[in-house]
Amino acid sequence: MCGIVGIIGAGDVSIPIYYALYALQHRGQESAGITTFDGKTLFKHKGPGLVAEVFDEDILHELKGFSGLGHVRYPTTGEKIAENIQPFTFRFMGRFCAIAHNGNLTNTEKLREEFEKRGQIFSTTTDTEVIGNVIADELRKSGRMEDAVLACMKRLEGSYSVVFLSEDKVYAFRDPLGIRPLCIGKTKDGYIVCSESVAVDALNGTLIRDVRPGELVCISKKGLESVQIAESSGHAHCVFEYIYFARADSVIDGRLVYDVRRKIGQALYLEAPVKADLVSPVPDSGIAHATGYSESSGIPYREGLIKNRYMGRTFIMPTQEDRENAVRIKLNPVKGHIKDKSIVIVDDSIVRGTTSKRIINILKDAGAEEVHMRVGSPPIKAPCYLGVDMPTREELIASGKSNEEVKEGIDATSLHHVSVESLIDAIGMPADDLCLGCLTGVYPLWIKGEKACPRYTDFIKGSYQTNIKEFDE
Amino acid sequence: MCGIVGIIGAGDVSIPIYYALYALQHRGQESAGITTFDGKTLFKHKGPGLVAEVFDEDILHELKGFSGLGHVRYPTTGEKIAENIQPFTFRFMGRFCAIAHNGNLTNTEKLREEFEKRGQIFSTTTDTEVIGNVIADELRKSGRMEDAVLACMKRLEGSYSVVFLSEDKVYAFRDPLGIRPLCIGKTKDGYIVCSESVAVDALNGTLIRDVRPGELVCISKKGLESVQIAESSGHAHCVFEYIYFARADSVIDGRLVYDVRRKIGQALYLEAPVKADLVSPVPDSGIAHATGYSESSGIPYREGLIKNRYMGRTFIMPTQEDRENAVRIKLNPVKGHIKDKSIVIVDDSIVRGTTSKRIINILKDAGAEEVHMRVGSPPIKAPCYLGVDMPTREELIASGKSNEEVKEGIDATSLHHVSVESLIDAIGMPADDLCLGCLTGVYPLWIKGEKACPRYTDFIKGSYQTNIKEFDE
Amino acid sequence: MCGIVGIIGAGDVSIPIYYALYALQHRGQESAGITTFDGKTLFKHKGPGLVAEVFDEDILHELKGFSGLGHVRYPTTGEKIAENIQPFTFRFMGRFCAIAHNGNLTNTEKLREEFEKRGQIFSTTTDTEVIGNVIADELRKSGRMEDAVLACMKRLEGSYSVVFLSEDKVYAFRDPLGIRPLCIGKTKDGYIVCSESVAVDALNGTLIRDVRPGELVCISKKGLESVQIAESSGHAHCVFEYIYFARADSVIDGRLVYDVRRKIGQALYLEAPVKADLVSPVPDSGIAHATGYSESSGIPYREGLIKNRYMGRTFIMPTQEDRENAVRIKLNPVKGHIKDKSIVIVDDSIVRGTTSKRIINILKDAGAEEVHMRVGSPPIKAPCYLGVDMPTREELIASGKSNEEVKEGIDATSLHHVSVESLIDAIGMPADDLCLGCLTGVYPLWIKGEKACPRYTDFIKGSYQTNIKEFDE
Amino acid sequence: MCGIVGIIGAGDVSIPIYYALYALQHRGQESAGITTFDGKTLFKHKGPGLVAEVFDEDILHELKGFSGLGHVRYPTTGEKIAENIQPFTFRFMGRFCAIAHNGNLTNTEKLREEFEKRGQIFSTTTDTEVIGNVIADELRKSGRMEDAVLACMKRLEGSYSVVFLSEDKVYAFRDPLGIRPLCIGKTKDGYIVCSESVAVDALNGTLIRDVRPGELVCISKKGLESVQIAESSGHAHCVFEYIYFARADSVIDGRLVYDVRRKIGQALYLEAPVKADLVSPVPDSGIAHATGYSESSGIPYREGLIKNRYMGRTFIMPTQEDRENAVRIKLNPVKGHIKDKSIVIVDDSIVRGTTSKRIINILKDAGAEEVHMRVGSPPIKAPCYLGVDMPTREELIASGKSNEEVKEGIDATSLHHVSVESLIDAIGMPADDLCLGCLTGVYPLWIKGEKACPRYTDFIKGSYQTNIKEFDE
Ligand SMILES: Nc1ncnc2c1ncn2[C@@H]1O[C@H](COP(=O)(O)OP(=O)(O)O)[C@@H](O)[C@H]1O
Ligand SMILES: Nc1ncnc2c1ncn2[C@@H]1O[C@H](COP(=O)(O)OP(=O)(O)O)[C@@H](O)[C@H]1O
Ligand SMILES: Nc1ncnc2c1ncn2[C@@H]1O[C@H](COP(=O)(O)OP(=O)(O)O)[C@@H](O)[C@H]1O
Ligand SMILES: Nc1ncnc2c1ncn2[C@@H]1O[C@H](COP(=O)(O)OP(=O)(O)O)[C@@H](O)[C@H]1O
Ligand code: SF4
Ligand code: SF4
Ligand code: SF4
Ligand code: SF4
Ligand SMILES: [Mg+2]
Ligand SMILES: [Mg+2]
Ligand SMILES: [Mg+2]
Ligand SMILES: [Mg+2]
Repeated sequence: MCGIVGIIGAGDVSIPIYYALYALQHRGQESAGITTFDGKTLFKHKGPGLVAEVFDEDILHELKGFSGLGHVRYPTTGEKIAENIQPFTFRFMGRFCAIAHNGNLTNTEKLREEFEKRGQIFSTTTDTEVIGNVIADELRKSGRMEDAVLACMKRLEGSYSVVFLSEDKVYAFRDPLGIRPLCIGKTKDGYIVCSESVAVDALNGTLIRDVRPGELVCISKKGLESVQIAESSGHAHCVFEYIYFARADSVIDGRLVYDVRRKIGQALYLEAPVKADLVSPVPDSGIAHATGYSESSGIPYREGLIKNRYMGRTFIMPTQEDRENAVRIKLNPVKGHIKDKSIVIVDDSIVRGTTSKRIINILKDAGAEEVHMRVGSPPIKAPCYLGVDMPTREELIASGKSNEEVKEGIDATSLHHVSVESLIDAIGMPADDLCLGCLTGVYPLWIKGEKACPRYTDFIKGSYQTNIKEFDE
Repeated sequence: MCGIVGIIGAGDVSIPIYYALYALQHRGQESAGITTFDGKTLFKHKGPGLVAEVFDEDILHELKGFSGLGHVRYPTTGEKIAENIQPFTFRFMGRFCAIAHNGNLTNTEKLREEFEKRGQIFSTTTDTEVIGNVIADELRKSGRMEDAVLACMKRLEGSYSVVFLSEDKVYAFRDPLGIRPLCIGKTKDGYIVCSESVAVDALNGTLIRDVRPGELVCISKKGLESVQIAESSGHAHCVFEYIYFARADSVIDGRLVYDVRRKIGQALYLEAPVKADLVSPVPDSGIAHATGYSESSGIPYREGLIKNRYMGRTFIMPTQEDRENAVRIKLNPVKGHIKDKSIVIVDDSIVRGTTSKRIINILKDAGAEEVHMRVGSPPIKAPCYLGVDMPTREELIASGKSNEEVKEGIDATSLHHVSVESLIDAIGMPADDLCLGCLTGVYPLWIKGEKACPRYTDFIKGSYQTNIKEFDE
Repeated sequence: MCGIVGIIGAGDVSIPIYYALYALQHRGQESAGITTFDGKTLFKHKGPGLVAEVFDEDILHELKGFSGLGHVRYPTTGEKIAENIQPFTFRFMGRFCAIAHNGNLTNTEKLREEFEKRGQIFSTTTDTEVIGNVIADELRKSGRMEDAVLACMKRLEGSYSVVFLSEDKVYAFRDPLGIRPLCIGKTKDGYIVCSESVAVDALNGTLIRDVRPGELVCISKKGLESVQIAESSGHAHCVFEYIYFARADSVIDGRLVYDVRRKIGQALYLEAPVKADLVSPVPDSGIAHATGYSESSGIPYREGLIKNRYMGRTFIMPTQEDRENAVRIKLNPVKGHIKDKSIVIVDDSIVRGTTSKRIINILKDAGAEEVHMRVGSPPIKAPCYLGVDMPTREELIASGKSNEEVKEGIDATSLHHVSVESLIDAIGMPADDLCLGCLTGVYPLWIKGEKACPRYTDFIKGSYQTNIKEFDE
Repeated sequence: MCGIVGIIGAGDVSIPIYYALYALQHRGQESAGITTFDGKTLFKHKGPGLVAEVFDEDILHELKGFSGLGHVRYPTTGEKIAENIQPFTFRFMGRFCAIAHNGNLTNTEKLREEFEKRGQIFSTTTDTEVIGNVIADELRKSGRMEDAVLACMKRLEGSYSVVFLSEDKVYAFRDPLGIRPLCIGKTKDGYIVCSESVAVDALNGTLIRDVRPGELVCISKKGLESVQIAESSGHAHCVFEYIYFARADSVIDGRLVYDVRRKIGQALYLEAPVKADLVSPVPDSGIAHATGYSESSGIPYREGLIKNRYMGRTFIMPTQEDRENAVRIKLNPVKGHIKDKSIVIVDDSIVRGTTSKRIINILKDAGAEEVHMRVGSPPIKAPCYLGVDMPTREELIASGKSNEEVKEGIDATSLHHVSVESLIDAIGMPADDLCLGCLTGVYPLWIKGEKACPRYTDFIKGSYQTNIKEFDE
């Protein structure tokens, strides 16, 4: 998964991009990059690590320019090498360009081969360079960005939310199914396009709306323009953004994530009521669900586990024993809350089950009498091909196992996952507009060896939306 | 404020000390250090920054030995220089020694002068080196650690929780008033003394009990021994440990911090009831208080502000505007929860008032109709001379101001601080055993220019507590 | 200027490449990079700074593989950005490739445009990526490396010595005029191609011979093969490699550099004899010339200036005064040798004249009575377009000025530059095989706005030199 | 060995100290430190590594003040720990003090015990802290620096050249035998005391004279003052400063080091003439000696080995083979100069013999017919107790071996060490004023288990030299 941002400002945009990346840091902690353009040349800085580690004040000061892109990465494709860190920059026909994207293409190899047959070489192993080539290839012919994005939508398969800098303009587009999020905001003196609305908030800006699936948006000194390039029979918004990935305070495709999670929490009680002394989240991802559970059940919300705020990527665990103990250092049980109590513990999802099992045993060691596990997602049964890093079916604890088997596997007193129906209700969109691939095994587009219920896409070309007012809410 | 730890183990103790420091990181983020002794020589590593930044696996590997100390620092005295980073190590009479402490001496200058008159030079500007000298001075004469600690208790004024390594033994003692915390734990193969019980938890150990005010404890391969050196007419446990400084999951002097805070939260409603749509904490320090408020009031607990988990010491804010905006990036309002709502917002304490004012305005900008501020401590009216970094009276917003004036100063709809009585009740100890200096202006020991109600101390010398069983609960 | 190396070994080649780069460090101190191939995948590490700063033992250990390239850079084209650091790596038609080069193309812009018209995008601003594209373009058609290099020799204008890795093979070729050096060596268990023979020495190998102008060489597990791709009417070996750039202990195109410099030194006395007490070099580049001068004149060789061995890229000089004083810290006068003496001071060349002037004044301040400046190159009158970083005509002190004027400009008692004839004699090659562009203003190939006496190139295609014996001396 | 410097200036002295340390870097590469005083407080920065690595412009900028000390260290006593890096700073009787020293005490343990008996603790394991205590101890009694230095000269045994900062004054003194060097210079706006005159040169200053053995000098805003504290029957200047340690361009105790070495080189020919084609130094330490040899013999000076300028502390040599090959990478043979030639090779000294043996074999491998080794010091037969890091007798190749045996041990055709007499002649001082301990086994002061011819010291107290003119030569 990745976080992307593109900004047009009146003055230098490196500091605003830096703040936006801070707000999107949860979408990728492996590397970060910023590229800016100052009217003459491109500046850039990228590196492995957190935003706070990659940038300092001197570096930001040297990234001059009123247009720019930023990126944080959690790798889905491409090896862990320096060249792969986004934004990817290039010169083309005398113009400085840069591109950053979130998502995963399913036909990269085929596209790569096509270009190589023409003599094209690739200096990275990322989807991003492939997308850059598709765009450049079309720009060379017509010179129009609408045509280039049309070409993308015709040739790229998979999920992609893209920000593209062409000197003083920033373009943004989203695949016709709208799988990954992308939204538009107005700042004091310009515009921002970004993965989640919290980045708009970080700049004290106003969320205008989401980029529509299949839409191309352009922000520049002139303002905001848009054109609809493709339209699909249905969308396929990733439900995992709501369940786990996005920040609780983001608004994605019109829904406040916290609200969705809280409603899931309420459903969890109604679907499988239990008597208990307290309901406690697995922090932080289970907090919103747990408040919902507490509301509908009336069972008091009280933290049974306190999260250590300082555990990062560099925590040292030389031995196996250390690795097992690490969960305990990260999540410390509050014995005074737990001893001799019956506890409902709520988490967003269960993937491999190892962490859940450890947590439940920590609670039991601390004296809990009963530990009822409640989970904010339906069982994960299949992998994701569209940009979320999930293990194979073999490693997924719920794949091919009954609820009873999983319950025993994690040592819980009882176990309940929210139903797909309640999840859809909590999101409040038609099922046909959601991707539920990893939960149902049915994907919104053809993937080799998997079942699919693919959406049908029409390539229209709406005229330029020159009336900028329309955007100002 | 500082966090200290001393460990005796069967094998190398550097990794356990590292984990303990992780658990105590909230007590000091400026620097960290570890010293170990392997039977022959002393190893040490110290540096500025977080535990995660100062240590890596290679470094921990080189810190060999079965006895050792660790320290995290938030500076109260002493400049920000390398030599001042604790533990302070020295050789004396052919023995390797190390010392680390938490607290603040009020007669350092006088002690320093006494030693200088004898020709002693000081290579750091810390209290720690002074304490090391007092101990060495007495050890030289009698060679007994009990005498050395007796000398400390007679000569040192102020607060001090000390861990002292003398080759294969770790000693620990606490000032006769017990101002700063210090507790003892049993691990799988040894013992730990540390500032807060969460460090015992981090090693999956068992909390034995707190070190008693005026007690000297020794842990070694032989087990645990103790002797009472001094006894006071009353104690003076710092109430700010409960209000803000300690981790919510720590048990300090027998009380679970989370519980104290939750009870304060309950009292806040009972003392000043208000009608509102939701109660929201200022995360993280207001969480426990807010859950208590929700319980006693029945107003639903819902987060109105989400904390960005990635903001650390290195966040860049070049301009004044950036600095003002930083609170917004750190604490993002969840508009969907706030718009047109009446909100009770709970924080642990108000110091200068600037952050509270910004938070309240962020909530109002996000559409809140009413913002009722509830505070988990009585108004802070005076400075702390005993180890907590507090501003001067001039900078304290509540010093010399009425509740009404403070309320206007922070733009709140209404404002209430918990009363001193409810605070004492929530802690559940006699007022005579607590330090309330910064709240009442009356300190538990003489401080120049301040009022005091000093405790009286008797220097007894209890016999060695050789029956180790007694410690094993 | 740059240094390049390609190695085939029996075991891992990262350490040998590292040693070779150490030997070539004088050819570029701005950045360094190594790429290796282990039969399955490409490994690489690159960064700004000296070889010693960019690599450590862990990094070298991770660079696995029996074939590899190395590069040190002093930038001539391309901005100072991370992507521009060589080797440049790419995947093409399923093969891992890497390329590094030394030299400067004069038709880069034209080539770049041609590729861009086809839709090709460029992720760096270097000649290297352009050469990579020319090679890939031809490989795609015929799949043969000979054709690809033929295409290079037809399309590339300027100077280029190239090493190219195609998985388990390393190719090397040199422009048809042989402007920049490149030689072949045999190591204990493989082969090396590199910019200077000192890199062969560093591996305790044997210098086989130079790569011939217009030749393509291939080293692999199978041994060494070669084919002559192009042949020119004359060559154009850069004389500045002999005068200054190469290490004195290198053998380039059959001549020991030290010997050339010593002979120049001898000619300097014969062309302009003077009486003096001692002859002293400007260390280190004037040493070899000065020993020659001492030999032919009989004037004793004695160091008047001692070079500080520790001055590197990071020497701090905040003020203008500091910058002026820096020469004095770098080159300290030995007063005892200089006071009241008449001195011949020998340096390799004078570019802007500022350093020479400072040195002469340092000697005068130290009491020298006369300072006779002798220079190991003819006056530099024109810029270099072929890979050596020289200032514009305006900045060159000798451009358009008489010997008398330059002498006064640098405060010398007398001044003499070696003649072009003696320089050619010292090198011992026909003038038609040398580039003398920056000295005469006449270049060996067409350059816009400059005079030229271009060589004529025939594209032959000699058959593969399969008899490897031929190479073994 | 170490390099020390103390500076008084009109403005900030951190940059001048930095330049002086650059000039003294050859005296110690392990760590570096600077301390300054700005009238109010002490600033300091220290760290492991070269001057260039320890300091950057920001750091130097923060080291404010018009008086200061600097130090570079090559450790003789004390472990490799951060606290041991000099200057050692302390507060004493309300004054900020700092101390740095070069030399080695032979009675440290005894002194340390005396202080510990009084209760003093030591935070480092260096001689420096012991000297600091001796000074403070006396200052406490009389408050006069002359008395403190008198106490030092009475109580300290061994070698010590000391710079001592007491706020706005810098004191400097040298042991009564003058074992280690120390000199005084005048700068544009102040004074400098430093280990070697090259540091005076680096500031474009004027060498006034050496600090006299047993003298105490004080530099301050008021100028330069001095008092003779002790006077000895003879001195004991270390001959190894002339042979190897000092820079060739330094003037030590009145003699230009280069000149001493050149004269030794001349004697080497006269003592053991040989016919040869060329004389070549082992660079850099053999250069001056080799030019002398060339002068007296008439054999041409020509470099047979070229030194790689980039090999530093971090050169990587994982295997034994690599370590053996390292000498070859550091010193590359110029085959064209060596093949079939008879060579005289000159080095400053032979310690263990391993490097000499490798060099001779490198020359033989490169085709040398005869290799005549000439050495600029008499055979080293005994260890040094006075500050030079030498191996034990067992490791010294010349200890207990005949010239013939050593010759065979290093594979030389012939071998000759300069005689003690010629060495003394070249230095030009009476033997009674030199230390020759490691060459003769007879030391200038009592050392347990060694022979000695100790000097006798008188403690006088010359009156203050208030006539500053005297210093201005
Ligand atoms: N205070 C909070 N209230 C509700 N949700 C939160 C809060 N803080 C973070 N989150 C959510 O928690 C998730 C981060 O998960 P967390 O459990 O902390 O990490 P992990 O990835 O280790 O499970 C994000 O989805 C974020 O939206
Ligand atoms: N999940 C939690 N529940 C209750 N209290 C918490 C939690 N996490 C941290 N704390 C408490 O919050 C305090 C840290 O305060 P916080 O508001 O995060 O930082 P700041 O110092 O910026 O106010 C500590 O006292 C800690 O005990
Ligand atoms: N010992 C030596 N004898 C002769 N030439 C040398 C020696 N050491 C280095 N060189 C030559 O000196 C040149 C380096 O120049 P130098 O004057 O040290 O640096 P700068 O680039 O600052 O002028 C290289 O050409 C190298 O071949
Ligand atoms: N150009 C030079 N001429 C004469 N002596 C030199 C020169 N440069 C350095 N030296 C001397 O060489 C010594 C450094 O020794 P060197 O052989 O380079 O290192 P190593 O310690 O490895 O033997 C110092 O004593 C210095 O005075
Ligand atoms: S498969 Fe699952 S994780 Fe992947 S996009 Fe669809 S819903 Fe999201
Ligand atoms: S004055 Fe306040 S902060 Fe200080 S010790 Fe007392 S209660 Fe704690
Ligand atoms: S112009 Fe000068 S520097 Fe450039 S290649 Fe020709 S001779 Fe060399
Ligand atoms: S023993 Fe040798 S090295 Fe040591 S001080 Fe004496 S002469 Fe110098
Ligand atoms: Mg989680
Ligand atoms: Mg807080
Ligand atoms: Mg030079
Ligand atoms: Mg040497």
